[in-house]
Amino acid sequence: MSDKYAMAGVNIDAADLVKDDVRRLARASFTDGVLAGPGLFGGLFELKGYKTPVLVSSMDGVGTKLKLALTMDNYDSVGIDIVNHSVNDILTCGATPLFFLDYIAMGQLVPEKVRDIVNGLSIACHDVGCALIGGETAEMPGLYAGADFDLVGTIVGIVEKDAIIDGHKIVSGDIIIGLPSSGLHTNGYSLARHVLGESRQALDIFYSELGQTLGQALLTPHQCYYNELKPLLPMIKGLAHITGGGFSGNVPRVMPQNVTAQFDTSAWYVPPIFKLIQERGQVTADEMHRVFNMGIGMVIISSQENAQELLRHLPNARQIGCIIPLKNDQRVILN
Amino acid sequence: MSDKYAMAGVNIDAADLVKDDVRRLARASFTDGVLAGPGLFGGLFELKGYKTPVLVSSMDGVGTKLKLALTMDNYDSVGIDIVNHSVNDILTCGATPLFFLDYIAMGQLVPEKVRDIVNGLSIACHDVGCALIGGETAEMPGLYAGADFDLVGTIVGIVEKDAIIDGHKIVSGDIIIGLPSSGLHTNGYSLARHVLGESRQALDIFYSELGQTLGQALLTPHQCYYNELKPLLPMIKGLAHITGGGFSGNVPRVMPQNVTAQFDTSAWYVPPIFKLIQERGQVTADEMHRVFNMGIGMVIISSQENAQELLRHLPNARQIGCIIPLKNDQRVILN
Repeated sequence: MSDKYAMAGVNIDAADLVKDDVRRLARASFTDGVLAGPGLFGGLFELKGYKTPVLVSSMDGVGTKLKLALTMDNYDSVGIDIVNHSVNDILTCGATPLFFLDYIAMGQLVPEKVRDIVNGLSIACHDVGCALIGGETAEMPGLYAGADFDLVGTIVGIVEKDAIIDGHKIVSGDIIIGLPSSGLHTNGYSLARHVLGESRQALDIFYSELGQTLGQALLTPHQCYYNELKPLLPMIKGLAHITGGGFSGNVPRVMPQNVTAQFDTSAWYVPPIFKLIQERGQVTADEMHRVFNMGIGMVIISSQENAQELLRHLPNARQIGCIIPLKNDQRVILN
Repeated sequence: MSDKYAMAGVNIDAADLVKDDVRRLARASFTDGVLAGPGLFGGLFELKGYKTPVLVSSMDGVGTKLKLALTMDNYDSVGIDIVNHSVNDILTCGATPLFFLDYIAMGQLVPEKVRDIVNGLSIACHDVGCALIGGETAEMPGLYAGADFDLVGTIVGIVEKDAIIDGHKIVSGDIIIGLPSSGLHTNGYSLARHVLGESRQALDIFYSELGQTLGQALLTPHQCYYNELKPLLPMIKGLAHITGGGFSGNVPRVMPQNVTAQFDTSAWYVPPIFKLIQERGQVTADEMHRVFNMGIGMVIISSQENAQELLRHLPNARQIGCIIPLKNDQRVILN
């Protein structure tokens, strides 16, 4: 026991204990490429069998969904969230996940919470063949108040250079397909909490239109699209992960400048959680579409020919729009 | 302006503004391998010219040094800190940095602060030829109190498989060389703040033994050892980055089980900042060595023959110990 350091609020021994749990959970996700995982100064991953390998990486947090996890005392789900969010992000470039690193910071380190989070990370990593190769658990008294914490993840994936998906082949006449989201995913939680409340009492209310409590609906893990899309990537011209900013913030990132993505908002089912937020908060439709995914978690753009084939392979997917010549300088039009 | 979302404490337009600054600063660090930087869903980095490439990655935060940056209203230095810390971490495996990603979270996004942090990141990345390829700036009202923020970084580097440094060749008789730290680096700040105070007033006190104010001394950026060690790596058997846990927490990570690292603590100069903390806080020498680097930021282990050559090339380095057969089951002995 490190006396003075403990007095200053940091318990090195507790940190050591957690490390063993983290290593054990991480090991469950290890793949062939892993040479060294958590414990060394760096995670080592050997690249094998690539001709012109391009690494695709992304780093992100879970946002204020963490606050709900805290109130609901449920930590596995945010671990799943950050992995699935990250996997989807690099999937938009056509990348296969290689490894993941996490950062967990708490005012006071609670081993059970860390274990639950890492358990979620490990499960979600394993689902897509991604190795949880390293990370950091930081105890920061005075920086995180009360039970507050933060969770950040970094994913590194790989794609052959000639298989990168970047949308440059998208032309007028292409089809826009939407894959359903499982809920809010990891965006818009500040607004959702503001509108619907965030106390344990508010979260425990059962809503008949949701078929579950508000807390359950809001903590539904972020849907991962990797396993269903991986075999279909050669048929896809562009992929947009619908996160903060909605269609207008995300779809233009993968389109050429000379086209507009025209959506038919009646073409898909908007889950009741979004209607609930919109009604209770009297939020305009425009803002709803800017902040939330509105039921579409991933947008696929393909040729008309491939679209039919994609829809056959993706039973939950719907055609939700099409690519037209640039119209009124608007990159995205919602009809 | 997104009305309801702004009411909930999140300003998407301010976030967009910062993104432009971040992109500009990041671009200054771009290297040949970068195919796409901040802006896309993933950062793309092409690997060229490696035979059996092994990726080495590390993710870490700056810890409560952030609190001091906040009080001193100085944000560049923590940006430099997290990059240099990360570069040193993967250097211990012999890795060359490829790219870096950052995560900055604030309760309320202050563009100037984000810009200063990213400026520090960009400068430190450029110094070692590392591309600042992506990251996330998150505004999280309600999760970070007041002006509190967090800064996390992930580095990905590369090493040829047959050039990995992992300490397995270390034998009794090898020499331990120490490279001086520039100060506390990024560890022990909770204890330092507890002992020396953390108010602006306390930090502005000029200490004659430090030759500067306490705040200046404590915010000194983490020393990066990459540029001086890179050409010498073939002569090195083991490298330990001295971070939280000191010698006993870090040196055993790179040593075989059958040897002990014996240090002669009189062999190097302990900077006055550590003496100040020890005296003011009446901290035992044992704990000082467990929490702080005590003036040695990087430990090199090499054969006796190479040690002489290394010391010739590293004017600031000192022999600070040697490797002996395992003694009393202690992996590290401080004499």
